[in-house]
Amino acid sequence: MTTATLSRMEDKIKTFSKFGDAGHGGITRYSLSPEAHQARDEFVKRMKAIGATIETDDMADVYATIPGSEPGLKRIVMGSHVDSVKNGGNYDGILGVMGAMEVLETIVLENIPHRHPITAMIWTNEEGSLYPPAMMVSGVVTGKFEKQKVLAAKSVLDPARTFGQALDASPYKGDEKNRLSPEKYMAMFELHIEQGPILEAAQKDIGVVTCVLGMCNYRIRTYGQADHAGTTPMSFRRDALYAAAQVLIHLHQELDKLDPALVYTTGEIKCHPCVHTVIPDEVDFCIDARHEDPEVIKQVVQIIKNIPAEVAKCTTSTELAWARDTKYFDKELIGFVKETADELGISNQYINSGAGHDAQYVSYLMPTTMIFVPSKDGHSHCEPEFTSVLQCEQGARVMLGAVLKADKQ
Amino acid sequence: MTTATLSRMEDKIKTFSKFGDAGHGGITRYSLSPEAHQARDEFVKRMKAIGATIETDDMADVYATIPGSEPGLKRIVMGSHVDSVKNGGNYDGILGVMGAMEVLETIVLENIPHRHPITAMIWTNEEGSLYPPAMMVSGVVTGKFEKQKVLAAKSVLDPARTFGQALDASPYKGDEKNRLSPEKYMAMFELHIEQGPILEAAQKDIGVVTCVLGMCNYRIRTYGQADHAGTTPMSFRRDALYAAAQVLIHLHQELDKLDPALVYTTGEIKCHPCVHTVIPDEVDFCIDARHEDPEVIKQVVQIIKNIPAEVAKCTTSTELAWARDTKYFDKELIGFVKETADELGISNQYINSGAGHDAQYVSYLMPTTMIFVPSKDGHSHCEPEFTSVLQCEQGARVMLGAVLKADKQ
Repeated sequence: MTTATLSRMEDKIKTFSKFGDAGHGGITRYSLSPEAHQARDEFVKRMKAIGATIETDDMADVYATIPGSEPGLKRIVMGSHVDSVKNGGNYDGILGVMGAMEVLETIVLENIPHRHPITAMIWTNEEGSLYPPAMMVSGVVTGKFEKQKVLAAKSVLDPARTFGQALDASPYKGDEKNRLSPEKYMAMFELHIEQGPILEAAQKDIGVVTCVLGMCNYRIRTYGQADHAGTTPMSFRRDALYAAAQVLIHLHQELDKLDPALVYTTGEIKCHPCVHTVIPDEVDFCIDARHEDPEVIKQVVQIIKNIPAEVAKCTTSTELAWARDTKYFDKELIGFVKETADELGISNQYINSGAGHDAQYVSYLMPTTMIFVPSKDGHSHCEPEFTSVLQCEQGARVMLGAVLKADKQ
Repeated sequence: MTTATLSRMEDKIKTFSKFGDAGHGGITRYSLSPEAHQARDEFVKRMKAIGATIETDDMADVYATIPGSEPGLKRIVMGSHVDSVKNGGNYDGILGVMGAMEVLETIVLENIPHRHPITAMIWTNEEGSLYPPAMMVSGVVTGKFEKQKVLAAKSVLDPARTFGQALDASPYKGDEKNRLSPEKYMAMFELHIEQGPILEAAQKDIGVVTCVLGMCNYRIRTYGQADHAGTTPMSFRRDALYAAAQVLIHLHQELDKLDPALVYTTGEIKCHPCVHTVIPDEVDFCIDARHEDPEVIKQVVQIIKNIPAEVAKCTTSTELAWARDTKYFDKELIGFVKETADELGISNQYINSGAGHDAQYVSYLMPTTMIFVPSKDGHSHCEPEFTSVLQCEQGARVMLGAVLKADKQ
């Protein structure tokens, strides 16, 4: 099996990497773009070749299903996305689709008996790169987001174009009745790259994912006084950027005292008026903090709320942008993944997901879990993103074993 | 004289504040805009009314000249600008033009004898708000900038429009032979608001300006590694924004040990990719430092160059953007300003200019100096900018006295 599946996986990686090739080893493949449609067409062509039935729903999600041996049973679905960020890599999202294809191909070509219908699926617009936010479509299908709001989402490149218009123009827009639902589907698996350095550092080939981390996201602002850079003595200044730098350092000092598994990021900063000859009067930066334990997140919130009201003669404010609790995956499915990896002798460890994924929303509807494979140097959302063919194939093989264990239920 | 000139000054302030009224007590009056042309038209109308001869040069600078009693003598010019920054105040630039008008009006209406022709002048595009850079036209006229490059400067609102096109469309575009030159002009005075809090804090009504401060401007960059905010443990991170905050604090700590008259500003910061879920991989901020003494500027440069090559696991770089030496104004003219203020019993002190002005470029061509009046709360380049009518009139009165002293030469 390994030789056949390895060469099939390698062929898929090479083929899908062409759709949206950005010329430096990676891709730009926005959801519902011509390049993303090429990837969907390839998926459909290959799935039809093994006799799968193709369905599409009103959000342009694509489902390729092979029948099971017992009538009336619910489907088991494996899915991820084919869209990427700008200048993204060849693995984020598409690996989960290629892995699902690989599982169906293996089952069909090797005549592996199974009771349930099994589905490989493409989720529309997971990244939200062109039409934010991320995971908007799984949000709609699972009832987290309002469809009308999502349809009105504007293109970041052309505010006159909405996601709804892109959807209307897609040949993959289908019928709402085809949506993934707990009435028709029994369980979902998502194979994905880790997007971090943990598995590589631990020399493990499979991450048995247990949860998606809880998080909080705050906006932190400092307010000073805009004055002329050349004419205002230092003692008269209220410099909002100097204050923001002090707050940022203070947050690192305090947060570093908490649990070492905490991750926090100040990825975005805006300075007003951002002119080299003017003292900044307002700086706005965000902090994103993630940890499995809600008690640790509470400690983070307390540190943020305890930022002094006045720093470097500037006032400060904090505002919660959003927060979510840790979402645990299905214990039985997690067990199937762990058992399969162990049985196949593939090195593995439990891991959490610091990133959000469609599986996280689906887990509110039905038993769901994820399988991670290592990311070289931990890089993701960039062209150097890399996972070896063997590691990709091992991920698919573990997913196959876990699906077959679920199929026995 | 005071009552007449006070009411004339008040009328001018009220009238010119209408041209480009931005609705919150200030103005937006970009150079060569319809609003700026209204201000020029008003200047020409009032100067023609007192018998001044109007000339314009190829850069649309406007000159209104009254003859002197002795033939063949060079002109004495007083000038500033009528353009503003976006949502600027009613005093920056225009006060120097109103003051020049006031001086000519007083001389004509009170028949004050003078030997030299005396000119009131409008410099084009001092702010460079719509067509950067600032002081571009005085730069061309004094040979500091290449005219062709300046003509190609693009509008910040419409990159398809150049400064050259705006100039061609202006009825004020005239003949190059009318430019301010040392062959035709003997000296220049520029009345301006301080744009800082020093005079107000010292309770002085006149600043006798001695120089424009020397400065250096560096770009400071930190380079880390972009990785996912949720999947990258803290110990694996190379966060360019965290490094930049440390460098910024370090610069404050070191620079604050130098001479207390030093001013330095980090007004601009850019973060890449500036996404809340991505660890920043590059941050670029600028530092602008100004001091009269070149030895202090040298110490600043040394501190910048001594920034550690590695900060918080990120690399750093520094790049000189530009620098200029302190430019001293003409000692004799400075003396005329000081003597006049003392004779009139107007409280005054020596002061330097931390901001750049057209007078600074002109000072390379001919004896030049400036006169400052206080800025309420030190504010400038914003709508609350304020100087009382009395202080404005006192500025004009000191300029009149200084011009008449120069006229005796």
